[in-house]
Amino acid sequence: MKEIDIIPSTLKEAVERISELPGYGEKSARRLAVNLLDMPRGEAIQLIKTLLDMLERIHPCSECGLYTEEEICSICSSEERDRSVICVVEETFDAFAIEKTGKFNGLYHVIGGRLSPLEGITAEDLNIDKLVKRVETNNIKEVILATNPTVEGEATASYIYNLLKDKNILVSRIAYGLPFGAVLENADDFTLSKALEHKTII
Amino acid sequence: MKEIDIIPSTLKEAVERISELPGYGEKSARRLAVNLLDMPRGEAIQLIKTLLDMLERIHPCSECGLYTEEEICSICSSEERDRSVICVVEETFDAFAIEKTGKFNGLYHVIGGRLSPLEGITAEDLNIDKLVKRVETNNIKEVILATNPTVEGEATASYIYNLLKDKNILVSRIAYGLPFGAVLENADDFTLSKALEHKTII
Repeated sequence: MKEIDIIPSTLKEAVERISELPGYGEKSARRLAVNLLDMPRGEAIQLIKTLLDMLERIHPCSECGLYTEEEICSICSSEERDRSVICVVEETFDAFAIEKTGKFNGLYHVIGGRLSPLEGITAEDLNIDKLVKRVETNNIKEVILATNPTVEGEATASYIYNLLKDKNILVSRIAYGLPFGAVLENADDFTLSKALEHKTII
Repeated sequence: MKEIDIIPSTLKEAVERISELPGYGEKSARRLAVNLLDMPRGEAIQLIKTLLDMLERIHPCSECGLYTEEEICSICSSEERDRSVICVVEETFDAFAIEKTGKFNGLYHVIGGRLSPLEGITAEDLNIDKLVKRVETNNIKEVILATNPTVEGEATASYIYNLLKDKNILVSRIAYGLPFGAVLENADDFTLSKALEHKTII
């Protein structure tokens, strides 16, 4: 009996491409594709167009790396922020979480990940050179290292500390109010507020 | 201190829309949005355009309900298939799994889900009327009920059996080579082949 290949080619291609996203395997990719096909078509197309719109309009702030729709993000262009303090975070949503506490009034710097020898992520893959340049060319008095309190986050903080320790600025690490191994983005406001208040001078 | 809303509006909208997909919450939606933003932009846009292409080209076959890029799917339009046997499945990927065994040469009928009082899914929400019409107006000799071997799948098979039992055709249920509670799409080819071979006449 001749076997007919009945999976439509655009569905196959969609599943292949979704599988390339972090955390997706073939089955979860297939599930997402079929869920999209099962939705009322107008809603699914609207969802996809929203994603396309997002990809066309959002890019990293040319100063700090936060995702923004402008050339310079609303934090970097605000006159109400303390421009002498930079809070270093791994990802944009970490900064959003800190911002929600209302306890930080400085600027951010998104390095875009963490050092991870296992995943082959080295300092060159992260937005760290730019941070050192910002510290050297602006009147920065303090850098708060708010990478996640994980093994990789700690290693990343140490690495950055070593690059900044001779620059005659204060370098601090966000306080361990956070439980070790946790993910910063998931912390509640109170814990995150405490961690900012009790930052320890390195 | 004035709090600045730093989450870009298109990112917010994307997260809201992704959250509407089955199985997504706010955090997983956010993760997907950020993963898309973190990818090389060209690749991300290509992924999204592939999904849009899929949504524009794929629709249910007007005969059997299988997802296809044509008006009539490759199975329904094939002259090599046995047009007197219909295998009823819950979803398109269930048919793809059966097709992969190479043990079935008839036609399919996708009902698009299963009866589920808890989720409020009734017979009217499923593509069952069309199945009865196909049986009445074509020269169908046998209907194989291949809904999943779960409580809902069984209830759906019974419901369809009751609609078809007086139509003077053979109605069979895919054999329990499958462990109860499993998902048909995930079964290995051998188990699925056995289940087709040992289908039992109702």
